[in-house]
Amino acid sequence: MSELSVRSGLPVATIKFYLREGLLPAGSPTAATQAQYDDGHVRRLRLIRALTDVAGLRLDAVRAVLEAVHDPERSWHEAIGAAHSRLALTTTTSASAEARGRVAALVDRRGWTLHADGPHAEALARALDALADLGRSPSEEILDVYASAAETIAEREVGGIPESDRATAAEFVVIGTLLLEPVLLSIRRMAQEATSYRTRG
Amino acid sequence: MSELSVRSGLPVATIKFYLREGLLPAGSPTAATQAQYDDGHVRRLRLIRALTDVAGLRLDAVRAVLEAVHDPERSWHEAIGAAHSRLALTTTTSASAEARGRVAALVDRRGWTLHADGPHAEALARALDALADLGRSPSEEILDVYASAAETIAEREVGGIPESDRATAAEFVVIGTLLLEPVLLSIRRMAQEATSYRTRG
Repeated sequence: MSELSVRSGLPVATIKFYLREGLLPAGSPTAATQAQYDDGHVRRLRLIRALTDVAGLRLDAVRAVLEAVHDPERSWHEAIGAAHSRLALTTTTSASAEARGRVAALVDRRGWTLHADGPHAEALARALDALADLGRSPSEEILDVYASAAETIAEREVGGIPESDRATAAEFVVIGTLLLEPVLLSIRRMAQEATSYRTRG
Repeated sequence: MSELSVRSGLPVATIKFYLREGLLPAGSPTAATQAQYDDGHVRRLRLIRALTDVAGLRLDAVRAVLEAVHDPERSWHEAIGAAHSRLALTTTTSASAEARGRVAALVDRRGWTLHADGPHAEALARALDALADLGRSPSEEILDVYASAAETIAEREVGGIPESDRATAAEFVVIGTLLLEPVLLSIRRMAQEATSYRTRG
């Protein structure tokens, strides 16, 4: 346990808490007060820490994501879809027909095939409604600039997904989705600040 | 009050709660139990709702953002900087020298000028550390693809910032930053799903 603490950089109390909460699988008992942990435990601890600390997820969301990744009842593709669904932006109201139409047009322009009940199209439509309410609808050009960059990144990401192990593949996608998002948001905020500074001094 | 509820789409109880919490300025009293509200109130309610419902901010974060926008002690540019700082991704540990070096190299490649104490470079470095810990460092190419798209969007955004009124300009940037992020994240998740579906079936 103390070695696990050193290797993961997390306090023993935190590791015990994750064990109690079922986020970290128990080690193999070697004595009454000792257990054997392996590289899988270290990796899981790093993942939990990254999801809470960097991606900003609450523990219940971390649990939901880990369950979706490790549920053996689901196919490789279903697990990815479920991981995506768990990550959906939460909205309490439904989107307008106009916003849904804009999203459908975007999907059509890009030639995307999506799961019929996927959450992201509705989340996008709802966000477009909120911007329209405030007089700030983004143009189709902005949506396309972004969609094009997202496609390029997705090609690189999806190309690297390991074929063999379903849980490993699902974890790969979850990490790529959740942990690359803070990277992308930070870069965008830096680009906005730099552009504002350059053009407005 | 009931008209305000109809125009904003929010229940009267919610509006009264925002008034008590100081998120919504009081109306002009017209009788013992009546007050006059204007378009500014409707707009403010839509903004609060969008920040909580679409951007997923908690009320204390909404309050901090609104305060930064409306503080008359700050210059136009300081207000934008403060709004950005308030939105910084929270991290509890500091980044490695290696990750900071990668971020500095990115800023250098893009020719960006940033505020010296801005929070986004550190947040980016910390997110890169988390990905490296999990064996998933994004390539410089991915960072540049994204930075290029972010610059294009920023050019459009910053070009539209109204010159005249400091609070209006700061609000413009906050809306663009916070409310466009769910749009961009949804598009990225859709692109990932579509690419995964196309290449993996």
